[in-house]
Amino acid sequence: MNAQNGNLSFIVLGASGDLARRKVIPALFALYCQNLLPANFQVLGFARTKMTDEAFREMITAHLTCRYTPGEACGERMTEFLARCFYRSGRYDSRESFQALYGTLRELEGPQEACRIFYFAVPPAIFHDIAHALGGAGLVRPAGSQPWTRVVIEKPFGTDRASSDELSQQIKTVFDERQIFRIDHYLGKEVIQNLMALRFANLIFEPIWNRLYVDKVFISWAETIGIEGRAGYFDGIGVIRDVMQNHLLQMLALVAMEQPVSLTKYVRDEKVKVLRSILPVTIEDLVLGQYAAGGGQKGYREEPGVPADSITSTYAMAVLRVRSRRWSGVPFILSAGKALDRNMTEIRIQFKRTAGHVFLDKWPEGLPPNELVIRVQPDESIKFGIMNKVPGLGLNLEHTELNLRYASAFDGLIPEAYESLILDVIRGDPGLFICEDELEASWDVFTPVLHEIDEKRIEPEPYAFGSAGPAGIQKMLSKFPPRW
Amino acid sequence: MNAQNGNLSFIVLGASGDLARRKVIPALFALYCQNLLPANFQVLGFARTKMTDEAFREMITAHLTCRYTPGEACGERMTEFLARCFYRSGRYDSRESFQALYGTLRELEGPQEACRIFYFAVPPAIFHDIAHALGGAGLVRPAGSQPWTRVVIEKPFGTDRASSDELSQQIKTVFDERQIFRIDHYLGKEVIQNLMALRFANLIFEPIWNRLYVDKVFISWAETIGIEGRAGYFDGIGVIRDVMQNHLLQMLALVAMEQPVSLTKYVRDEKVKVLRSILPVTIEDLVLGQYAAGGGQKGYREEPGVPADSITSTYAMAVLRVRSRRWSGVPFILSAGKALDRNMTEIRIQFKRTAGHVFLDKWPEGLPPNELVIRVQPDESIKFGIMNKVPGLGLNLEHTELNLRYASAFDGLIPEAYESLILDVIRGDPGLFICEDELEASWDVFTPVLHEIDEKRIEPEPYAFGSAGPAGIQKMLSKFPPRW
Repeated sequence: MNAQNGNLSFIVLGASGDLARRKVIPALFALYCQNLLPANFQVLGFARTKMTDEAFREMITAHLTCRYTPGEACGERMTEFLARCFYRSGRYDSRESFQALYGTLRELEGPQEACRIFYFAVPPAIFHDIAHALGGAGLVRPAGSQPWTRVVIEKPFGTDRASSDELSQQIKTVFDERQIFRIDHYLGKEVIQNLMALRFANLIFEPIWNRLYVDKVFISWAETIGIEGRAGYFDGIGVIRDVMQNHLLQMLALVAMEQPVSLTKYVRDEKVKVLRSILPVTIEDLVLGQYAAGGGQKGYREEPGVPADSITSTYAMAVLRVRSRRWSGVPFILSAGKALDRNMTEIRIQFKRTAGHVFLDKWPEGLPPNELVIRVQPDESIKFGIMNKVPGLGLNLEHTELNLRYASAFDGLIPEAYESLILDVIRGDPGLFICEDELEASWDVFTPVLHEIDEKRIEPEPYAFGSAGPAGIQKMLSKFPPRW
Repeated sequence: MNAQNGNLSFIVLGASGDLARRKVIPALFALYCQNLLPANFQVLGFARTKMTDEAFREMITAHLTCRYTPGEACGERMTEFLARCFYRSGRYDSRESFQALYGTLRELEGPQEACRIFYFAVPPAIFHDIAHALGGAGLVRPAGSQPWTRVVIEKPFGTDRASSDELSQQIKTVFDERQIFRIDHYLGKEVIQNLMALRFANLIFEPIWNRLYVDKVFISWAETIGIEGRAGYFDGIGVIRDVMQNHLLQMLALVAMEQPVSLTKYVRDEKVKVLRSILPVTIEDLVLGQYAAGGGQKGYREEPGVPADSITSTYAMAVLRVRSRRWSGVPFILSAGKALDRNMTEIRIQFKRTAGHVFLDKWPEGLPPNELVIRVQPDESIKFGIMNKVPGLGLNLEHTELNLRYASAFDGLIPEAYESLILDVIRGDPGLFICEDELEASWDVFTPVLHEIDEKRIEPEPYAFGSAGPAGIQKMLSKFPPRW
């Protein structure tokens, strides 16, 4: 049974939380406006907070937008959508709560059972309880049965390889790996998906996409805010576990992987292969930083709830090496940091310099290298930096950016990452989700060095709030001068 | 002596003609407005028509434009420029006429002799007479002397290898090869010059610029008008001699050549090498066409002055093969035609199809190939045709053109080809001019088949005025299906 032509129950666990309200339910509404939900569907929220259906509808309305159906029609679509949204409260560890949920679900679904998606918009600490209670209440049908049951979970998946494995084991007592969709919303971003189109639907990128032509790859994530009171979540975790081991490694995998057999589940096989080819990061490959006071903002150690001697990193740069025929010798320089001077996530593929060119008289220091820049946020875009003739007399050169795609040119048409990924869950396409093998391989890259940092209590280098990061960055980068 | 800091006399022979009035003198004015002429310069026009300096100034004013100095300042610049323009009439074959011209020149130059550029804006039939008279009047100083003397000549350079050689010999009785600047204004076009910047200042084009990745190269020239009464010039000459053997072959040479030692005179060495590597065109490699009546327009044979049985081609497509390690097996498909359905000159580098890609389900017929399109006219631009993700849900593809450069973005700043090339003559940079070796090699490509056509009186295929050309085009193109 294809859920798109049938019945679908979308159960949001943690329905009163931020993720559910701001991302998951608005994405469902956007799919609804694009007629991409099955004819019969219901959204059933569940959380501890007591709330009527009406109160739930009111709460979620605040974040529904009219991007796909502007004008008067939107109000009508909202009313239709909200009429299919329901809410039940209960305890996450209670079989009875879930039995009651099951009852509601059967009532809503009617005589024909529906396909079911359980969206875990809750902290991982309670994944196990929920899975157990769901299973106990008979809500989970075995893999392969029809109508199907699927579960969507989000990071963090543990804090190292061992804890991640343990979490996997707990979930797998109830769900089969084929039913589990581990979401990384960066993979749902328009430009990240375009990366696959560019790489595999064009001839011209393949010959230059390797160690012979690529000098280095930068994958950078920066935000200007600090932890904003989230010490309870962040302290002891740090930026490597929070961002680098998941989002940045996934982006690396898409840049570095070989062409998959097809763009469905086989994408995971290629990502796994790349992730397994990455040598474990050593402490010499790392720059660690922690923000200090700056620009009128508090330093990390002054944040409420953070111990005065915390060694948690709020900035990290890691040089990764992919041991493959395509990438051997090309540094993949990942960096992620909070309280920096910009908000920006991008992939920058820097090509080698042009050797033996004929413009040495005007560019004795060497021509700027070609670059392919995939800007994930803000202002999604893909740009190609090339050298071009300055229009006018004489053959003077300038570095120009070719825009492959302006987000502004498609205002309102670029779907949110969650729309794209939730649609994939409904369609049963696991290509852009993280399989267990990937999760293991991702942790293997960072687990040894994370343990070393914790055991040796390695101090991160302080950097001022709002700066470009710790001074160690320049020292690290100086190890990788441009080549040809 | 560098003419830019010294004295320059620019002598336009054929000063009352179209080329002088519309192109050469306006280009000089444009250079003047950009302060690119030497401090002391004079323009001296010469032709058979009797005219005063005043009448000459009035005549040329009509084509001067204020592109570089808009507003009120322009009138002032024009007045200054015109004050340096003079005119003498005489006979092209008369030593006395040129002695009188010499007298005027010495008067204008003053006690210090100036560098001299003779611009032959006259039909080649009188090149010999002029050269002889100039030499006899003592106006030409030997190569290597200072102040220097240079001569600019324009096509047609003969009608086959033998007549071209003869013309060269005649000119060389007076001028040395180092003094001769054979102009092909297509090489002065902004986008054509940018081709060299793109190819040699970037890393990313080199790996794909060869037989492994390029499927074919189209170099096309089309105009919508017929011969417009110019039967006297065109009949018996035809479009191969008029356009293909010169403009199109020169563009081919820039696309196909290796990187020169430098972008000065050594460019010619690389162009010669490519031209010498082209196998002579055979009749099997050709499609010949002649426009017939169509769209209310007369056919070629009905044009006044054209014999009713003329076999002159007004359209030609030729498949050229460059025997080199880089290009062996890649067809260079040149086409040129009058009375077609568009005005357009472009170079289209079509890459091979992407093999074994993962989009076969949606594009079972194969993905459109990548293309680099260099549009020379109208609307100069360089575009890269690539496959891109359609923004939105799902991984759908579309063929998109990346614009490397819009002419519109540099409105008024793109110099006319003649400005660029005349500046090169003043600066003594022969890189973009055609040397004797090139001329010989260019004729060698076409001379055998031109003789065969004339001897066997091979009939061109008729095509309707305003159509896409003769039917034979499709048959020829079908021999070169897309490859991977």
